Amino acid sequence: MILHGYWRSGTSYRTRIALNLKGLAYQTTPVDLRTGEQKSDAYLALNPQGLVPALETDDGLVLTQSPAILEWLEEAHPTPALLPSNAADRAGVRAMAALIGCDIHPLNNLRVLKAVRDLGADQGGVDAWAGGWISDGFSALEVLVARHGEGWCFGGAPTLADCYLIPQIYSARRFNLDLTPFPRLLEIETRADLHPAFVAAHPDKQPDGQSDAD
Amino acid sequence: MILHGYWRSGTSYRTRIALNLKGLAYQTTPVDLRTGEQKSDAYLALNPQGLVPALETDDGLVLTQSPAILEWLEEAHPTPALLPSNAADRAGVRAMAALIGCDIHPLNNLRVLKAVRDLGADQGGVDAWAGGWISDGFSALEVLVARHGEGWCFGGAPTLADCYLIPQIYSARRFNLDLTPFPRLLEIETRADLHPAFVAAHPDKQPDGQSDAD
Repeated sequence: MILHGYWRSGTSYRTRIALNLKGLAYQTTPVDLRTGEQKSDAYLALNPQGLVPALETDDGLVLTQSPAILEWLEEAHPTPALLPSNAADRAGVRAMAALIGCDIHPLNNLRVLKAVRDLGADQGGVDAWAGGWISDGFSALEVLVARHGEGWCFGGAPTLADCYLIPQIYSARRFNLDLTPFPRLLEIETRADLHPAFVAAHPDKQPDGQSDAD
Repeated sequence: MILHGYWRSGTSYRTRIALNLKGLAYQTTPVDLRTGEQKSDAYLALNPQGLVPALETDDGLVLTQSPAILEWLEEAHPTPALLPSNAADRAGVRAMAALIGCDIHPLNNLRVLKAVRDLGADQGGVDAWAGGWISDGFSALEVLVARHGEGWCFGGAPTLADCYLIPQIYSARRFNLDLTPFPRLLEIETRADLHPAFVAAHPDKQPDGQSDAD
């Protein structure tokens, strides 16, 4: 498989974690969001939306949108499972994933922060914008993890929710957000820091992230 | 079942469509987002995130986050199916849903538009903000519907993608967005306007939307 992504994009990062947790081999083709490579004709032919990631499967299928990619991975490569076996728990994991994937991440990705700057916000304003949405979401997630977590977001093994959480914590650190109000989320981060699938997916370990001081 | 939602919220609207398509009976409990009812202690006990919708099932389960609720509906009430039968097509439908659910809707809901106003945008600026994200997403979706649609977003029957699309078109009209560049999406809207499940889910048909001139 070939993953078209960007080292520091949260949606690419979460896809890498899921691929690694499933033990699936893949190549990485970097798409440089800072130079607008995602809007090149070549990339648009792959994904008309011009956003990362896109996953080319061994069958030549091109999958886009990380929530759809992660569900496809779970269906096509069910072991190890990243969703619980019963429907109620699956809904619980998916709710955590959507809390991050819909209510946090879309508000602080590169294109949206650029638009916030265009509205006149300075760096402090941008940090406050991003940090506010992350804090709101993490406050609710901390409650949900208290209810359902046993080491990871939901239960005692990584699920799709953790694939979403760890990149969002990485992003929060870039905005210098104080994470001490979220001890349960930080515990999961500590655990992920020791887990090979999460370690190998880290932005700093990606080919396009190696020599970048930005 | 009891759906806690707000008549004009896109996430509540998409959930109503899915419930109706499945032929499931439910009661509506309105949560007034304009008075901040979603942050009341009573509602926070139901959903710690303080966002609509929340669905109470007949088993007393409380489900949150519309993407998770819709997947649960599909698992718990599989007929009629709102996802195709093979994994590749399911990924295609879910990608359309996520394009709207992650890359359009989160950027123009009530709480985010309030934040955009707080950055100094006037009504024209707010319309431009919302309209820009909708246009970007709809442009890509128009291409995807051209590839996969046969009357509806994906194939010849309503799927989860249509549950997301129709509320987003309703929202686009509120921002006075010119929709003529998206003829395929408008064709789907015309079809939905004749479909009982979509008609009954319309904001104007909800108890809390009846006498509201806002």
